[in-house]
Amino acid sequence: MKKHIYIYSPSSAVRDKAAFKRGVKRLQGLGHEVEVDEAALAKYQRFAGDDETRLAAVHRAAASGADVALISRGGYGLTRILPAINYKAVAKAVHNGTKFVGVSDFTAFQMALLAKTGAVTWAGPAVGEDFGSKTGPDDIMEACFDDMISGQGEGTGWTLPKPAAQFAINSIVGGAQSAPARSTFNINNAVLWGGNLAVLASLIGTPYLPAIKGGILFVEDVGEHPYRVERILTHLLHAGVLAQQKAIVFGQFSNYKLVPGYDRGFSLSSVVARLQSQVKARVLTGLPFGHVATKVLLPVGAKTTLAVEGRNAFLLWGHQH
Amino acid sequence: MKKHIYIYSPSSAVRDKAAFKRGVKRLQGLGHEVEVDEAALAKYQRFAGDDETRLAAVHRAAASGADVALISRGGYGLTRILPAINYKAVAKAVHNGTKFVGVSDFTAFQMALLAKTGAVTWAGPAVGEDFGSKTGPDDIMEACFDDMISGQGEGTGWTLPKPAAQFAINSIVGGAQSAPARSTFNINNAVLWGGNLAVLASLIGTPYLPAIKGGILFVEDVGEHPYRVERILTHLLHAGVLAQQKAIVFGQFSNYKLVPGYDRGFSLSSVVARLQSQVKARVLTGLPFGHVATKVLLPVGAKTTLAVEGRNAFLLWGHQH
Repeated sequence: MKKHIYIYSPSSAVRDKAAFKRGVKRLQGLGHEVEVDEAALAKYQRFAGDDETRLAAVHRAAASGADVALISRGGYGLTRILPAINYKAVAKAVHNGTKFVGVSDFTAFQMALLAKTGAVTWAGPAVGEDFGSKTGPDDIMEACFDDMISGQGEGTGWTLPKPAAQFAINSIVGGAQSAPARSTFNINNAVLWGGNLAVLASLIGTPYLPAIKGGILFVEDVGEHPYRVERILTHLLHAGVLAQQKAIVFGQFSNYKLVPGYDRGFSLSSVVARLQSQVKARVLTGLPFGHVATKVLLPVGAKTTLAVEGRNAFLLWGHQH
Repeated sequence: MKKHIYIYSPSSAVRDKAAFKRGVKRLQGLGHEVEVDEAALAKYQRFAGDDETRLAAVHRAAASGADVALISRGGYGLTRILPAINYKAVAKAVHNGTKFVGVSDFTAFQMALLAKTGAVTWAGPAVGEDFGSKTGPDDIMEACFDDMISGQGEGTGWTLPKPAAQFAINSIVGGAQSAPARSTFNINNAVLWGGNLAVLASLIGTPYLPAIKGGILFVEDVGEHPYRVERILTHLLHAGVLAQQKAIVFGQFSNYKLVPGYDRGFSLSSVVARLQSQVKARVLTGLPFGHVATKVLLPVGAKTTLAVEGRNAFLLWGHQH
């Protein structure tokens, strides 16, 4: 299904132009009409153009009438321009059918838009890292992208880590209550939201974090030691955000290093187990989303059902047009 | 002047026991009575004992009747136990003359105590890194420590970076307004507060960040690229914290690496200059405090005067008993 895809750069400057070009070609090869924003390859310091340039790029994407507005890459830069974004214009574009897609730093944009307007955007790929991957785009990512653009996708599913592993995790935490039994449960009609954990937490206490009650919060991060992940989760906990959620779903936490002989059992697993002992929300892991090739697309801000049957987890959002 | 110094470990496990022992000996050598908490060298995962152990250590320090309660080291761990600390007991100890001193992760404790009780603590050294330094404790740090314990110190001073450098910094930021002229000014009777930037920001929107109006906020950090420093400052900005301050004083930001050919002029200096363009507060740099050997001691929560005369800056807090 041929779609109009608008590519722009709201965050860091494109460093790997070859990957960017491969990504554009791949999208064209899939039959899409690809429109590249005039400032997509702009550079100012470490940014894809100065703040005014990137702000204008966001607004051009909103005015493009494209089916999909896709970021070239993440990095850093959106928090700088949050106060100046015309959220009504972006929400209007969403209402008229433009799906905004991105990851990482893009979380700041998604959270702010959701907070200001309730408009739904998509957590998903970027042009360079994903469509432009040297080894070729990931099949699952592309299938999910196709689901999104066709409007036919109604959800996604994944396999939860083994119960045995989960049990081992819980046993690490002395005195902590056990995690709620997995077995089978549904959480219906909850707002799915989240994204990059560090970026999301950097919005706590600002007008750019949506106040979601009874939600399903998903998080991912890259290059953060589990103690930093825990510090951020503790921030969300102490700010009262986690107590409001019905589920917390961990995506992929990649590219960090434990310190052997020092961490001594402190790990992402123990962080997750500790969190489960602190919240009533269901805590799940293994969601294929994050700074990894195999990533599903997720409608941020959409009413969603989380269904778990044994080791099978599903996020179901119905048609999102 | 012989003092009773109580050493305890509220955060990470002591890794460098030799440094710890050197620090204890150094303090004894200065004539002090040093009492080491029973759990000072405890280990649980990466922590100096599990949460209950460290919590009990904090409360033993508060009950010790010591003149100074000094942390063995920073690291990570205090945010985990913030909800369980008996702040009234700590404030009572402060009232009765115990000076709590620390750095880095200790910022969480200092902020929470200030928020809950208004009690003054001290940003300063730790046993291992500072008194136990392999090359010997820093002279200025020791002189400031002596000022604090004698109650004779009434302030501290430092030399601001060259105006020429400051001008160059400002010129990087296109369109930004110039920083307020340095020359000579006083900010009187303002609450001095702050510490580690990342730790402080991880308290935004929680009950553990004090709501300081008209304050002098000082910040430092280690191992954070300037883009992360900026993201945290932007968090404080968007949360409305910076607009409430009369001055923002940068301590030392150490042990990070720029990315040549990518950052292209984005640097800590440009971050500072951008910040100055966004706030009315005076923004100063060069405060000798942070993850560095030469650190002054600062009374967190105390009414303070910031006096600037040309390139000379002074923080004056009078006697703090």
